[in-house]
Amino acid sequence: MAPRRSFWAWGLESEEPTDAQRAVRAEDLSKRYGTSITPIPVPDLADAELRPPRVQVPDALTGFCRTDTWERAFHSHGAHFTDRTNAFNLRFPNPTDVVAHPGTDAELTAVLDWCSSKDVKVVPFGAGSSVVWGVNPPEADAVVTLAMDRFDQVLEIDALSRAARVQAGIYGPALEDRLRPGGFTLRHFPQSFRFSTLGGWIATRSGGHYATNHTHIDDFVESVRMLTPRGWWESRRLPGSGAGPSPDRLVIGSEGVLGVITEAWMRIQRRPTFRATAGIVFPSWAAGTTAVRHIVQAKLWPANCRILDPVEARRAAGLDGTQTLVIVSFESAELSQRHLIGAAVELARAAGGVIADADIAIDDGQGEPTGRGGAVGAWRDAFIGVDLGLDTSLGLVADTFETAITWDRWPEFDAVVRERVGAALSEVFGSTAELSCRFTHVYPDGPAPYYTWFGMGKQGSELSQWAEVKHATAEAVVDAGGTITHHHAVGRMHRPQYDRQRPELFAEALRAVKRTLDPNGILNPGVLIDP
Amino acid sequence: MAPRRSFWAWGLESEEPTDAQRAVRAEDLSKRYGTSITPIPVPDLADAELRPPRVQVPDALTGFCRTDTWERAFHSHGAHFTDRTNAFNLRFPNPTDVVAHPGTDAELTAVLDWCSSKDVKVVPFGAGSSVVWGVNPPEADAVVTLAMDRFDQVLEIDALSRAARVQAGIYGPALEDRLRPGGFTLRHFPQSFRFSTLGGWIATRSGGHYATNHTHIDDFVESVRMLTPRGWWESRRLPGSGAGPSPDRLVIGSEGVLGVITEAWMRIQRRPTFRATAGIVFPSWAAGTTAVRHIVQAKLWPANCRILDPVEARRAAGLDGTQTLVIVSFESAELSQRHLIGAAVELARAAGGVIADADIAIDDGQGEPTGRGGAVGAWRDAFIGVDLGLDTSLGLVADTFETAITWDRWPEFDAVVRERVGAALSEVFGSTAELSCRFTHVYPDGPAPYYTWFGMGKQGSELSQWAEVKHATAEAVVDAGGTITHHHAVGRMHRPQYDRQRPELFAEALRAVKRTLDPNGILNPGVLIDP
Repeated sequence: MAPRRSFWAWGLESEEPTDAQRAVRAEDLSKRYGTSITPIPVPDLADAELRPPRVQVPDALTGFCRTDTWERAFHSHGAHFTDRTNAFNLRFPNPTDVVAHPGTDAELTAVLDWCSSKDVKVVPFGAGSSVVWGVNPPEADAVVTLAMDRFDQVLEIDALSRAARVQAGIYGPALEDRLRPGGFTLRHFPQSFRFSTLGGWIATRSGGHYATNHTHIDDFVESVRMLTPRGWWESRRLPGSGAGPSPDRLVIGSEGVLGVITEAWMRIQRRPTFRATAGIVFPSWAAGTTAVRHIVQAKLWPANCRILDPVEARRAAGLDGTQTLVIVSFESAELSQRHLIGAAVELARAAGGVIADADIAIDDGQGEPTGRGGAVGAWRDAFIGVDLGLDTSLGLVADTFETAITWDRWPEFDAVVRERVGAALSEVFGSTAELSCRFTHVYPDGPAPYYTWFGMGKQGSELSQWAEVKHATAEAVVDAGGTITHHHAVGRMHRPQYDRQRPELFAEALRAVKRTLDPNGILNPGVLIDP
Repeated sequence: MAPRRSFWAWGLESEEPTDAQRAVRAEDLSKRYGTSITPIPVPDLADAELRPPRVQVPDALTGFCRTDTWERAFHSHGAHFTDRTNAFNLRFPNPTDVVAHPGTDAELTAVLDWCSSKDVKVVPFGAGSSVVWGVNPPEADAVVTLAMDRFDQVLEIDALSRAARVQAGIYGPALEDRLRPGGFTLRHFPQSFRFSTLGGWIATRSGGHYATNHTHIDDFVESVRMLTPRGWWESRRLPGSGAGPSPDRLVIGSEGVLGVITEAWMRIQRRPTFRATAGIVFPSWAAGTTAVRHIVQAKLWPANCRILDPVEARRAAGLDGTQTLVIVSFESAELSQRHLIGAAVELARAAGGVIADADIAIDDGQGEPTGRGGAVGAWRDAFIGVDLGLDTSLGLVADTFETAITWDRWPEFDAVVRERVGAALSEVFGSTAELSCRFTHVYPDGPAPYYTWFGMGKQGSELSQWAEVKHATAEAVVDAGGTITHHHAVGRMHRPQYDRQRPELFAEALRAVKRTLDPNGILNPGVLIDP
């Protein structure tokens, strides 16, 4: 039995911040922000009052369907600030009615058949890391959440083709554990890695480990198997194809509205043994972003190519608050990456970057690595912006937003977003607000900027404060030409901006596809398109 | 005015094989195959009898619509062996009725409106290089072929993002001519490059110059604009996105059944100045394919990574008929490729490949290149398998087929295909038949093999002889697990096998999309899906 997840914090129940830890932290925050925070005690789920289930589970399905409070509460939200703030306050105004845990194709089919016939809505659920309200129950007469956690096996490894057939409900760490003994890895490490699943990654077009070239899970899907209310959809395993529009690309990103992904053949990697890393300091944000552009346009395809703006570079690596930090890393299972890091550093220096030769960290897989990586040596990727629940349980309001934009619009895009979001933050949080940016992924034609913001909220008003800033961020991004999401998905949260962004006829096409595959409209209504 | 294309040969009218050339060649072929070929004279299109147009062009559209014999004959077929054999014999049993050449959005809209209202079928036409009957008129009461040749401009170049806004009807060479002065190139060079268009490449998921990594046009499309009978479909310019299933990926490969692509923002390249090439000889086909697998799985991402089987290596590079030739090339606008070619050669040698250090050709953009490329120095990519019309106008039957398959199935796949296709070839052509293979593109999880075959046909029976072998090739490929096409498209030719290959529910979804965008079903009926 897996250790139980916290229903309100990011982590296991055993890792939840305690009241003692929170008291200390409340004092810190009170001092920092010149306020006085009185921590509400960690909630006890036994005190939660959930609306009784509105639907009766058929006898044949009771063996794998649950209706207890913990199951229903945990599966009624994702991991967004708003989700966890509500959960912390024991607010479950629209809980799912039943949580089904099918373990076989037959059980899964039985759930969809039941729900189709009774007009019960179905929310597919991986590990609940959605930050876009993708798994929150819709308004409906009855909702079943379909937890895929029993579809958790690696079924086959094809070492010659470097591919594996993997069930959709497997969590990131378990997947890596199964691939490791054969010397393989998927190397898909979203921030949510620990508590997210392969099926969720595919359904949401998750962004992964690689900062350049193959950035999304999309590129690693060789074929996919999905159950729709109309039956099975399964594509052929192919390394490449030009036969009509890609069936897989219609599934990837469908966010549970077309079917339930049960397994996929995934392209896997040999575990890297050669590595090279450099943390390069730039005098300004503009100089650093130019260097990153040159590196990605030279098609060196580094595995990591991150840039932290002066705010993040100070926070994460102790730089002086004006400097920008670029981290470039290469990795390979086959070949020394010494030459590639050299080429990247050369381009970075030409753009004004500073790193000593001796600081370039090179691991040729033969004993001691050389160098410390430069400024990156001091950098710990502490999952900046992943709020574990300590601060937000004390009134801090925090969120991130991410997008992608072509280079020709970039500096202006950044200026506009910072101005508009900065204004909203000041308005709502005064001087406690902070806004920063990094690039998580970079393309020859543009970056994928990732913004983090937080401010000290007014206890009890956190959600409305968040909503005001969120509106400003989402509108600014789409007004300025970006995508409403580069890898966090649309869910229910981003619908207003997504509806502005996608071609109207594409939405009509997607609705037509949905009517074909899900004629009763039971699957995840409200996500991506209206029922 | 552009020089006129040949209506039966691959090339311009001025480049057609003459009767004198054909007489000499007929003697050669007669000797080689121990037969006696009497050349039918080059046809005169004035002798063709075309069914009169079955539809009257509205007055408002007559300015850009043509109904003369040359226009209708030329636009009633693609460039496949069967197409050109029919044309050579002046067989146009189902000619298009009208050829429209709209030059503006308004003219294009007017054509679709007219055809929608009168139930006239529409076949979008780029440059007529389809080898899968993608532009042949369907059985219908009336057909308009929509020639996009007046949409031929590069509208905008964004040098910072390395992207260009390009109209769909531009031919390959004209596109490169427009990009060259700015130092750019699309570097999409299918065999059909000279007589194919950007819109055609996107509609058919064309395979391009790059043998690894970004192999299809798909990866270079930043956004696309398409006119459907319901109106415009236009996606936002984005370097990457995770907002729902990709709208572009539904357009890419839609082969004219959903709409008419009018323009796209394309990711372009700086023109390469650094190059490195090696032609490496292997003692066997198996050794060579293993080397190619190691190179692509090491993710060196060479621009070219081709392998010719012993038959092709003998024909193209004069090897001994047992040896296999691997050609690996790297290129860059920014960086010397010396180190990368070194790494690739090292992997190739470890797999049994032979090339002298001095033979590796390296061009560092600073004067004289070094080395001659090894065996590749003798290799001229004479577009093996592109039949220009000389031999096939004399009774030679020739075709190619291409696919992709995962490595775990590869050697067996090749054996099965060669056995089944070889049997069909022997049956039909006896000892005059030849079958060979190369890889045009290679992926970490499998190769894209490209087979070429020909045999001396019986004059007058060429089409039925072709059909017998084609059936064997297509069935063998799909039975053995491959895709019916890696980059030639489905068209009308590959429907039987495509229908077996794609998920049935995907076909239903695609039909639903088509009903949404093209409610009267006027666009390219019979391609990909049934009306």
